[in-house]
Amino acid sequence: MRPSKRQPDEMRPVSIRRNYTMHAEGSVLIEFGNTKVLCNASIEDRVPGFLRGKGQGWVTAEYGMLPRSTTQRMGREAARGKQGGRTMEIQRLIGRSLRAVMDMEKLGERTVTIDCDVIQADGGTRTASITGGFVALADAIGKLVEDGTLTENPLCGSVASVSVGIYKGTPVLDLDYPEDSNAETDMNVVMTDAGAFIEVQGTAEGHPFTEDEMNQMLALAKKGIGELTRIQQTALKG
Amino acid sequence: MRPSKRQPDEMRPVSIRRNYTMHAEGSVLIEFGNTKVLCNASIEDRVPGFLRGKGQGWVTAEYGMLPRSTTQRMGREAARGKQGGRTMEIQRLIGRSLRAVMDMEKLGERTVTIDCDVIQADGGTRTASITGGFVALADAIGKLVEDGTLTENPLCGSVASVSVGIYKGTPVLDLDYPEDSNAETDMNVVMTDAGAFIEVQGTAEGHPFTEDEMNQMLALAKKGIGELTRIQQTALKG
Amino acid sequence: MRPSKRQPDEMRPVSIRRNYTMHAEGSVLIEFGNTKVLCNASIEDRVPGFLRGKGQGWVTAEYGMLPRSTTQRMGREAARGKQGGRTMEIQRLIGRSLRAVMDMEKLGERTVTIDCDVIQADGGTRTASITGGFVALADAIGKLVEDGTLTENPLCGSVASVSVGIYKGTPVLDLDYPEDSNAETDMNVVMTDAGAFIEVQGTAEGHPFTEDEMNQMLALAKKGIGELTRIQQTALKG
Amino acid sequence: MRPSKRQPDEMRPVSIRRNYTMHAEGSVLIEFGNTKVLCNASIEDRVPGFLRGKGQGWVTAEYGMLPRSTTQRMGREAARGKQGGRTMEIQRLIGRSLRAVMDMEKLGERTVTIDCDVIQADGGTRTASITGGFVALADAIGKLVEDGTLTENPLCGSVASVSVGIYKGTPVLDLDYPEDSNAETDMNVVMTDAGAFIEVQGTAEGHPFTEDEMNQMLALAKKGIGELTRIQQTALKG
Amino acid sequence: MRPSKRQPDEMRPVSIRRNYTMHAEGSVLIEFGNTKVLCNASIEDRVPGFLRGKGQGWVTAEYGMLPRSTTQRMGREAARGKQGGRTMEIQRLIGRSLRAVMDMEKLGERTVTIDCDVIQADGGTRTASITGGFVALADAIGKLVEDGTLTENPLCGSVASVSVGIYKGTPVLDLDYPEDSNAETDMNVVMTDAGAFIEVQGTAEGHPFTEDEMNQMLALAKKGIGELTRIQQTALKG
Amino acid sequence: MRPSKRQPDEMRPVSIRRNYTMHAEGSVLIEFGNTKVLCNASIEDRVPGFLRGKGQGWVTAEYGMLPRSTTQRMGREAARGKQGGRTMEIQRLIGRSLRAVMDMEKLGERTVTIDCDVIQADGGTRTASITGGFVALADAIGKLVEDGTLTENPLCGSVASVSVGIYKGTPVLDLDYPEDSNAETDMNVVMTDAGAFIEVQGTAEGHPFTEDEMNQMLALAKKGIGELTRIQQTALKG
Repeated sequence: MRPSKRQPDEMRPVSIRRNYTMHAEGSVLIEFGNTKVLCNASIEDRVPGFLRGKGQGWVTAEYGMLPRSTTQRMGREAARGKQGGRTMEIQRLIGRSLRAVMDMEKLGERTVTIDCDVIQADGGTRTASITGGFVALADAIGKLVEDGTLTENPLCGSVASVSVGIYKGTPVLDLDYPEDSNAETDMNVVMTDAGAFIEVQGTAEGHPFTEDEMNQMLALAKKGIGELTRIQQTALKG
Repeated sequence: MRPSKRQPDEMRPVSIRRNYTMHAEGSVLIEFGNTKVLCNASIEDRVPGFLRGKGQGWVTAEYGMLPRSTTQRMGREAARGKQGGRTMEIQRLIGRSLRAVMDMEKLGERTVTIDCDVIQADGGTRTASITGGFVALADAIGKLVEDGTLTENPLCGSVASVSVGIYKGTPVLDLDYPEDSNAETDMNVVMTDAGAFIEVQGTAEGHPFTEDEMNQMLALAKKGIGELTRIQQTALKG
Repeated sequence: MRPSKRQPDEMRPVSIRRNYTMHAEGSVLIEFGNTKVLCNASIEDRVPGFLRGKGQGWVTAEYGMLPRSTTQRMGREAARGKQGGRTMEIQRLIGRSLRAVMDMEKLGERTVTIDCDVIQADGGTRTASITGGFVALADAIGKLVEDGTLTENPLCGSVASVSVGIYKGTPVLDLDYPEDSNAETDMNVVMTDAGAFIEVQGTAEGHPFTEDEMNQMLALAKKGIGELTRIQQTALKG
Repeated sequence: MRPSKRQPDEMRPVSIRRNYTMHAEGSVLIEFGNTKVLCNASIEDRVPGFLRGKGQGWVTAEYGMLPRSTTQRMGREAARGKQGGRTMEIQRLIGRSLRAVMDMEKLGERTVTIDCDVIQADGGTRTASITGGFVALADAIGKLVEDGTLTENPLCGSVASVSVGIYKGTPVLDLDYPEDSNAETDMNVVMTDAGAFIEVQGTAEGHPFTEDEMNQMLALAKKGIGELTRIQQTALKG
Repeated sequence: MRPSKRQPDEMRPVSIRRNYTMHAEGSVLIEFGNTKVLCNASIEDRVPGFLRGKGQGWVTAEYGMLPRSTTQRMGREAARGKQGGRTMEIQRLIGRSLRAVMDMEKLGERTVTIDCDVIQADGGTRTASITGGFVALADAIGKLVEDGTLTENPLCGSVASVSVGIYKGTPVLDLDYPEDSNAETDMNVVMTDAGAFIEVQGTAEGHPFTEDEMNQMLALAKKGIGELTRIQQTALKG
Repeated sequence: MRPSKRQPDEMRPVSIRRNYTMHAEGSVLIEFGNTKVLCNASIEDRVPGFLRGKGQGWVTAEYGMLPRSTTQRMGREAARGKQGGRTMEIQRLIGRSLRAVMDMEKLGERTVTIDCDVIQADGGTRTASITGGFVALADAIGKLVEDGTLTENPLCGSVASVSVGIYKGTPVLDLDYPEDSNAETDMNVVMTDAGAFIEVQGTAEGHPFTEDEMNQMLALAKKGIGELTRIQQTALKG
């Protein structure tokens, strides 16, 4: 029995609110149950040094947790003067995931930065960030297409992400914090709307996992990402 | 005529939502028009080094702006590796303002940290932080009183804050961003519910201001803080 | 009775020595009693990024305390690897105050940096920095006028600053350290030679202050700044 | 055809030299072809703060590349003042992987730090670090067992790692740099000697990958890790 | 001919003013011609971690240049967030030099920190810092002896320092900035009052130097340090 | 009797291996007994800001110790976020020493960076770095000459370095760690193949040293550097 009484293959309620703040080109509040992440997409007409003059764009992400998004207050990274390893790891994952569906030449020499800030954390903040970040990205790109800046949409698909894991011996979908902190194995999966993998990151926390367990987790992930893709599509039409 | 068509002595609509996030001992989303600040109060059973063993508590504040809370994206302070001067100045102001109504001996050896994170900025983020921060602080303290940890409420009053300024020659109350960035003078005032001053910070931006202008601004501030105090009281009863 | 036996409206002896060091375009040692601050003005033919190509100049300030300018040795900020919040707050105040009397277009694309380094501290280091910093600035600008680099003096007035406060219930002028550390209220005031306000920063330390107390403090500040303006004028003629 | 003319399932020659430096409790130079990593294990009789007094030990890792271990010189992280995101991500991976086979209670209140420093890089530095790091860890632990500090070996298995990927449409084992920088997909796999997974980190670089491709990659990884485990065992007996 | 018209073996006028600031246990302004360094000695009743509980004291030094002590303004190290290599090198040299005449056991568990801050630079700031720093140290120790904290003076001699160099082929004593920046060789020498060496740091700037040149430089240094020792003694008696 | 049983004027066995790693333009592993330093020379077609457009090149060095190159593990400088004073001092020394034999105009607008990374430390890491760094530099320059980039060799001599000291009253050559940590005096000497001095850095550790002791140490250094120069020449011919 999961602490939340969910079925093993049952996700938490997911909600996506677009245009959540007023300044960003794309602004999404995504909720996976009690996990709430604000994803803002900003477009700037310049690219990082290594891309200058190559006629290509860039998509990058930054991630942060509000100090009291967690059960115990965490020190503010800006005050400590550096981002921790976990933060860096997550923002690199978000950036790679979103770049996977962007045609950088069609985007042209501009950078889209996706800021994912965790308002409230209850497990799955990185998967919510990717899933909500994609919608913010799509909104920001949509504006460039609408206003004629881009003649062609540079997005070649959509991206969503969910966590799966082994909790008390059972493969489960979309772990919340009480599960995540006790899971034997934790896997974050990022997939396209076409059902292909962008990222698979599985970690044995309690004991090593078998190929069979991995396959069961991947099947759950596939199911969850299918649902998330539909929720993204509905939100983007709304 | 103000850009927002408000009367010179008219504040923006103010809203205070308590229990906005689930982990913090006090959690308030305050809005001054389009300015939205999340104020979370966290209680920890320890005090900074300089107070250890003195039987006193401490109240401190941290302030941050989400990178895209503003019109143009601002660099993330955690990524740049330090908090800017404006951030430091504001969080010191919030901390001092809230300490002014706290009896540190009654609080005992614990620290309350008020995290003020700007979700959306449209002028007045520091005054909203102080006003909302007080409500978060009151909620956190309220829990300590309710559960019997404290036998007496250590708060000896309430605190609220508003900005006033001279805009196109006219003293105005509660400047939004279009006014703030063009005001000749900008003053942030912090007062208690008893109508006394905690902080007065007036800055000539365009040209020096006269004593007469200062008195007019202070009168507006007094009016605004009176209204804010009532809104705080209503929220705390709600 | 004030610890220094001064009258409530009596300033400490103030001395201003120009050309104190030999390399700076303007170099002033200012003393407010035992408080000694070295103010050096440096002119450079470039402006910060946000002003490039706009035909305007900039005035900025940096502030530091020598580690043993204080009763107890303070850690060196360069060794700790960052400037504290108080330092940032003060140097921002000095910069804003001096910019208030500078016509940036007449200054042209150059930056004046005022370095205020506290040799010995006994209260009032920020007000001494502003008052002495203005004289250093005037000297540096004077050289640009003399050598024909500038055809018109871009300074449109002078600036001076003093602290006032409530000490044991009495409004007093120009607090020294023993007063400052026990004052109920502390206010730093910056005014022009024309008697208008540039900055008013009042802080309740012990208990909130009333409008009446504020008015008494402002009257004292006005008197003190009048005296300081005369001392500046005498020094600049000398 | 692979640039190195290797078969798709052929690893580079692997060599493990123990006791490579004289001070460390465990010191291994591991080579995966031209990739050379020095793995030093250090034992200290203390644990990180969060474990103090719990009767448990800790295993952690740090990773660095010598500035000219790469084709182009990379800036020295010590000189730049911070470790990059890639470094953090890799050292966190190494640490997690090695902790997976350590019984922390049997280890007792001591910390083993595995320093993995890349002398020469040609792809696969993180997998070489984990594989060599395990041998260094085993050597260090072996000394504690030999000298009677530990009565029971706290290692409950061995760990090795290899990369797999899709290169020009073909799944290949143990990518070198020319392959790695052109691979469509790159996956790092960490497994125990019992054939179970500790970590699976797959990333689509060029285009998303299918479940079928993943299964082929996992099969190659299994083969490679089997070989590495034997090489580790031979080295540890030698 | 030296730019200053001094004879090759002629030092600049040296002045030592004790009790220059009021808070430090020892406070000396030393001038070597136009070079002015403020040396403050602070005593604290604790020692660095590596000496705790060993019954010994410590002497350390910190060095800084005011930003406009030099011809061109130098960036403030506190603002840049780190001390440069030259600063570190000099403060380590000052510390080592002063420790050479201190009996750490007689000093007991206390730390003396010598802050050397350059007010005005014209060559020789490190030698002036050592020479003035010794006087500040002697004054601070003198107070501990006078007030009975120490029953025996832990200083076992005095220390002074001077630079020598080869300027246009001629060995010269006490280089000022115009000489220093053009010298072929530059050597800083630290000696005791007994004429023994504490530090010799010779650097070929233009071309390598011969043993013969070194001997001539050392002879000049000996002469200069003899003079400095007498000036120190006179100052300490005054 | 020296702990190593060497004669007072006997160096440790020295070995120089060229082309130690494959990417660097010059790559040398140098051993002074158990001290092992990897010296990699990298050539880049740009110069630091202060040399831009002057038609000159630059030679610089960076130094680091692997965390477990020492008896006790040292914290990694990259993780601590800054290079220590000793590191800075050493890398500045290496850079100055190597620049002394380089004709910067003949080198042209390019920078050679010598990375000296200590694999194993047993005293004398800085002297080994300079001696090995020269060979790496010569190799890198040799390639520029060979491929016709440079028409003339910009090296105007060779550089080597050794330490000398007073150990238990006897002047000794090439101190290893057990000697170094107990020596009364420690002197690092850098000389050219022509027998002239580039750097002399002598430090009294235990008690001040006399001129006579210095002369004996210099004679030993001369002998040692003569041997090192021959070993460098043999290596470069090999």
